[in-house]
Amino acid sequence: MPVIPVKTPSASYNVTIAAGLLQTLESRLKKLNPGKPLRVFVVTSPEIWGLWHKSFLASFKEAPTVLFLPAGERHKRLASVESLAEQLSHSGADRDSILIAFGGGVIGDITGFLAAIYMRGIRYVQVPTTLLAQVDSSIGGKTGVNLATGKNLIGSFHHPQAVFADTNVLATLPAAQLRAGLQESLKAGVIYDARLFRYMEQNAEAILAGDPASLTRVVSASVRVKADVVSKDEKESGLRMILNFGHTIGHAIEAATNYKQLLHGEAIAWGMIAALNVASARGTFSAKEADRVTNLILRYGPIPAFKATAKNLVALTARDKKNRSGIRSFVLPTAIGTTEIVRDVTEPELTAATESMLSLMHRQTTPTKKRKS
Amino acid sequence: MPVIPVKTPSASYNVTIAAGLLQTLESRLKKLNPGKPLRVFVVTSPEIWGLWHKSFLASFKEAPTVLFLPAGERHKRLASVESLAEQLSHSGADRDSILIAFGGGVIGDITGFLAAIYMRGIRYVQVPTTLLAQVDSSIGGKTGVNLATGKNLIGSFHHPQAVFADTNVLATLPAAQLRAGLQESLKAGVIYDARLFRYMEQNAEAILAGDPASLTRVVSASVRVKADVVSKDEKESGLRMILNFGHTIGHAIEAATNYKQLLHGEAIAWGMIAALNVASARGTFSAKEADRVTNLILRYGPIPAFKATAKNLVALTARDKKNRSGIRSFVLPTAIGTTEIVRDVTEPELTAATESMLSLMHRQTTPTKKRKS
Repeated sequence: MPVIPVKTPSASYNVTIAAGLLQTLESRLKKLNPGKPLRVFVVTSPEIWGLWHKSFLASFKEAPTVLFLPAGERHKRLASVESLAEQLSHSGADRDSILIAFGGGVIGDITGFLAAIYMRGIRYVQVPTTLLAQVDSSIGGKTGVNLATGKNLIGSFHHPQAVFADTNVLATLPAAQLRAGLQESLKAGVIYDARLFRYMEQNAEAILAGDPASLTRVVSASVRVKADVVSKDEKESGLRMILNFGHTIGHAIEAATNYKQLLHGEAIAWGMIAALNVASARGTFSAKEADRVTNLILRYGPIPAFKATAKNLVALTARDKKNRSGIRSFVLPTAIGTTEIVRDVTEPELTAATESMLSLMHRQTTPTKKRKS
Repeated sequence: MPVIPVKTPSASYNVTIAAGLLQTLESRLKKLNPGKPLRVFVVTSPEIWGLWHKSFLASFKEAPTVLFLPAGERHKRLASVESLAEQLSHSGADRDSILIAFGGGVIGDITGFLAAIYMRGIRYVQVPTTLLAQVDSSIGGKTGVNLATGKNLIGSFHHPQAVFADTNVLATLPAAQLRAGLQESLKAGVIYDARLFRYMEQNAEAILAGDPASLTRVVSASVRVKADVVSKDEKESGLRMILNFGHTIGHAIEAATNYKQLLHGEAIAWGMIAALNVASARGTFSAKEADRVTNLILRYGPIPAFKATAKNLVALTARDKKNRSGIRSFVLPTAIGTTEIVRDVTEPELTAATESMLSLMHRQTTPTKKRKS
């Protein structure tokens, strides 16, 4: 089974990818924490727990305490963290307790942040249940919550002790979530791994049908990209910024739609298309290759349409965390598998690229409004 | 002027103690951050700002953005952190921005925590305005807020870039706050610095009268204790625990009185007396020396009385952050200037020591209830 190491100045741990990991959690936790009594607290959503609690509990001699958090980006706020912390405290969790994040990206980000700040930091383990969480958000120690004024504006770097990605769990993932997660794998291919991109191009049908072997290959390759990039640049001072490909406009789309209408991977998909437009208009990425990438992004759709103007979206990018002293960083591909970070993308340039993405969206998809009527 | 270094594995910085530091802040910040534009955000209380804004602003060419937080322990909650973070985001604070905590311990703890988690960590500087904050809470990187279930249960280790303690500011400190802060200096003497203890014993009158030279000496010696201990044990895995002398019962008193009735230093004063009772009942600290310390603690009073039973207080210690896997650590002096950490204090022992402290309290002070009538 693939075991992929993450090695940063502040932490070393493994991402293990295999079918059936869930049923073996207790012995794995014991191996990570030898000689200590295990006091385990699980943070999960009612949906995930309903589907998978039997497998999850199979290995535990003493059942861990389970804390529930409703699914969804709108719960990724400090109020949820505080409520979970009060429950931990009431249940007697102390500095030796271990949290398990058992869910998608929101559960993982909140639980990691809770572990970062409960009693000034306790241990935690990621058991991601969505494709997006398995290939991206569970790895690298970025934890946090949203503010009303922007996504992930509150958080900590706090690495898990381990990531256990059980690919069996993907079988109960709604199709839209699978496709949204695959957009992050496409991102990994475009920015860092041309082979992964080609594999996803040549095997789109099997992957989209959820073929276990193909999915495991995509998950493993995507995890390798993330683990490699994070190991080289833990705190996002350089290389790690390339993981934000598609995120400038992607985050703006999420903000414009109040984090409700699109899945994260779907917003990033549109954001990648906008970024590709910038690169191809600049001539730093061939228009033909940009089309090739855009077409594959669309093939891994359908990506839902949304209502927002280019002007509105560009205005929302002003609060991007990547901005430093007012300068906007932007990740652009130079070829499939390589990128550059540029700091001179102008507002008109970004507006034009966004408009062109929006008009593609209107050609490709039926507007949400009409769908509902 | 005394410049006392703090050197830990994760940060090195200085605590500077002098009259008139406030008027020199901008050049000091520039020296700490050469070649970068300064984007400064101040977190303070309306009271402190009203008294000291002219001195504070004197050195700034461009006035920093000021964010207000009402004074008081009850505002030390995640809701305050979230509100400040939203204000930072609205005002365009980014990863290059610098926060200044300008106030007492609550302002310092909240601002430090805000700096720890805003955009996953930005720089900040402590400008403490109470004696307690100058000698203790501004140093060492412990930041955080309270839960309903307990004090400081949420937080981070995040060191400031520098601490600037302007002793001029102590002149406007209410007498009760000065005395409460002096209890923390007494604590520093008892646990680590017999010379400081003797100085406070021999010069109590001048110190309590606010004599600037005596106060500066007490502040400097106390800061040296804290800086030394923190430098040797940043994350409280051993030595740093001695700083918690008096805090087990002290925190329980604060919880029992809803953090409203006593100042932190006052609660710690009673907590130290309870701990002295444990040590002297065990025979690990001479009864005569315990009386000597207790008498000096009372001399730096009056310490207000409160209503709580020993049983109630001991029950409240069960949630102490220092407990690990159910084991309670306890800091006891063995002589003035040295301590030990013991893990075998029993509940009956602690209850007896607390009862004895409560009966001293009833002999010493008029109960609050009668005072009010």
